[in-house]
Amino acid sequence: MLEDKEQKRTSLDNLGEFRLIEHLTENFNLNHSSSKVGIGDDAAVLDYTDKKTVLTTDMLVEGVHFDLSYMPLKHLGYKAVMVNLSDVYAMNAVATQITISIAVSNRFPLEALEELYSGIALACKLYNVDLVGGDTTSSTKGMLISVTALGQAQDHKIAYRSGAKPNDLLVVSGDLGGAYLGLQVLEREKEVFKVNPNNQPDLSPYTYIVERQLKPEARKDVVELLEKLEVQPTSMIDISDGLSSEILHLSKSSKVGCNLFEDKIPLDPTVISACEEFKMDSTMVALSGGEDYELLFTIDQNDFEKIKGNPHFTVIGHMTEEKEGNHLITRANTKIPISAQGWNSFKGE
Amino acid sequence: MLEDKEQKRTSLDNLGEFRLIEHLTENFNLNHSSSKVGIGDDAAVLDYTDKKTVLTTDMLVEGVHFDLSYMPLKHLGYKAVMVNLSDVYAMNAVATQITISIAVSNRFPLEALEELYSGIALACKLYNVDLVGGDTTSSTKGMLISVTALGQAQDHKIAYRSGAKPNDLLVVSGDLGGAYLGLQVLEREKEVFKVNPNNQPDLSPYTYIVERQLKPEARKDVVELLEKLEVQPTSMIDISDGLSSEILHLSKSSKVGCNLFEDKIPLDPTVISACEEFKMDSTMVALSGGEDYELLFTIDQNDFEKIKGNPHFTVIGHMTEEKEGNHLITRANTKIPISAQGWNSFKGE
Repeated sequence: MLEDKEQKRTSLDNLGEFRLIEHLTENFNLNHSSSKVGIGDDAAVLDYTDKKTVLTTDMLVEGVHFDLSYMPLKHLGYKAVMVNLSDVYAMNAVATQITISIAVSNRFPLEALEELYSGIALACKLYNVDLVGGDTTSSTKGMLISVTALGQAQDHKIAYRSGAKPNDLLVVSGDLGGAYLGLQVLEREKEVFKVNPNNQPDLSPYTYIVERQLKPEARKDVVELLEKLEVQPTSMIDISDGLSSEILHLSKSSKVGCNLFEDKIPLDPTVISACEEFKMDSTMVALSGGEDYELLFTIDQNDFEKIKGNPHFTVIGHMTEEKEGNHLITRANTKIPISAQGWNSFKGE
Repeated sequence: MLEDKEQKRTSLDNLGEFRLIEHLTENFNLNHSSSKVGIGDDAAVLDYTDKKTVLTTDMLVEGVHFDLSYMPLKHLGYKAVMVNLSDVYAMNAVATQITISIAVSNRFPLEALEELYSGIALACKLYNVDLVGGDTTSSTKGMLISVTALGQAQDHKIAYRSGAKPNDLLVVSGDLGGAYLGLQVLEREKEVFKVNPNNQPDLSPYTYIVERQLKPEARKDVVELLEKLEVQPTSMIDISDGLSSEILHLSKSSKVGCNLFEDKIPLDPTVISACEEFKMDSTMVALSGGEDYELLFTIDQNDFEKIKGNPHFTVIGHMTEEKEGNHLITRANTKIPISAQGWNSFKGE
């Protein structure tokens, strides 16, 4: 529905994968001193002589993680990078390099991949990361993107999932649930479009949540802000699968429990109104929605004054002894166990 | 045809990706001092404080790069690692870590992924590399494996594609063409099997070439041998797409030309007899076949004495001035230009 049907189409068949990767990456520059050699040899060469390296990888599959009927390819390229950078920032590290591998069927013309790479290029520019490698190959069906991201940090700055202690405060950046509701809006409009292809949807009331879904931003700024505020998170994770699932990861890795306060969960007004429209419970959406790519972290209580009143951060709970378990304290002051209801690609939607 | 139809089948649907990756990787250990933290956090943490890091990534797609009707899953896992380690060794570096990401449709039971990971585990053990990350997700069709490999080397040891000089000798490890002919044998048997599923093929005359296709070995030993012989390759590349294509990569990157001598190309006797059987020209098979994962490198003429007579190495030509171009000198002493006829996944077979 957002697709331009008049696009120029150059078949990939006669281009070959060497020329394809050359063509797609010719305008990418290396900006980090740690990026010694990028694309063009058997491997990239990197120099991490004075810091630790963090490494993460994620795959996005058409029909599972994205739907090209409403996901513009440029946004998809951007998002594929964000998903991975988010994992680097969740280590409290600075992202420095990425590799991108793509498998595509022949139904995609070269111009489609150029669109995709323009989103990747924008992400590299805005987040200051170097593209240093990758692979392009054909698939028998659809598109698949595999990204690996590397980052650097001083050893003592790295925030693991395992460092939370009882009484640490649980903090989240930004607000939650928007990406999931944006997806609901897009899915609804897709169904409308199937019935009436001439219908032009008015998405303007949903701008914020649709952008959260189509063009998420990884929280590079949070890592920088924590450094500036001199706050070292005791543990950290990014929210890709929903708040409840990420809390359980932190608790399990740190061998602690957690009390999460329902009335503290940060929600954008658009999220609240969309929840009313879709007859969904906003707390459930925040707990299980996923794809917000906010950072969830714990801090020592002594650091509370440093983040207090900061508009980027909300204290949503605190950690407890492991034996106390993980609970949501509702607005009605009842205590219900938190269960993992995050998104699972093997179960589908 | 090599599939056991009586396998136990545990559906992936109800396992979830967190438990899946935990389950599949629980027996993997970290052996390198540079592997500080592996799977289980947002990112792996690596320590490369005294050496340069090399990074490479490759994708294998079912129906494009492999056919599960004759490729056992354990072999596939092993090969997926080899393909990437080969790129690390082609930098004259020591492979240290890998990440594995897999997209699979629900037609694969858990036991299939366990088989795949048993091959990955074997490769990690034999080649001394640590599995430090990855992703598992569902696909709408088939299986796709994306591997990233990291390695380390001292700066002055790294061999790029770009360092060859005129008069350098062109050297190849092992022998060529076997993997391609192994594929021909397997494809032929697959056709026979389609006609008569009870036919049990006798592959014993083809053991060597079938193994070259199904279970290639990356040439870790060559990197170690060159170190021991005190030979620093002036340029190096691995032969994944066929000799001609790799020679052209070296020549182009190094801004040199090349004379390749047909009568020097190392061929196993099984390759020669299979070529007769399939009515193929053995030189063409070596030039264009691909997937042998041997190393192709150049050395200074002064290093010739160090490798002379070594059974692992064959001098197959020498580099020239760029303006002289790239030529094959045939047995009949005619000079024909080398063209890239390596394997191109966008063109199919």
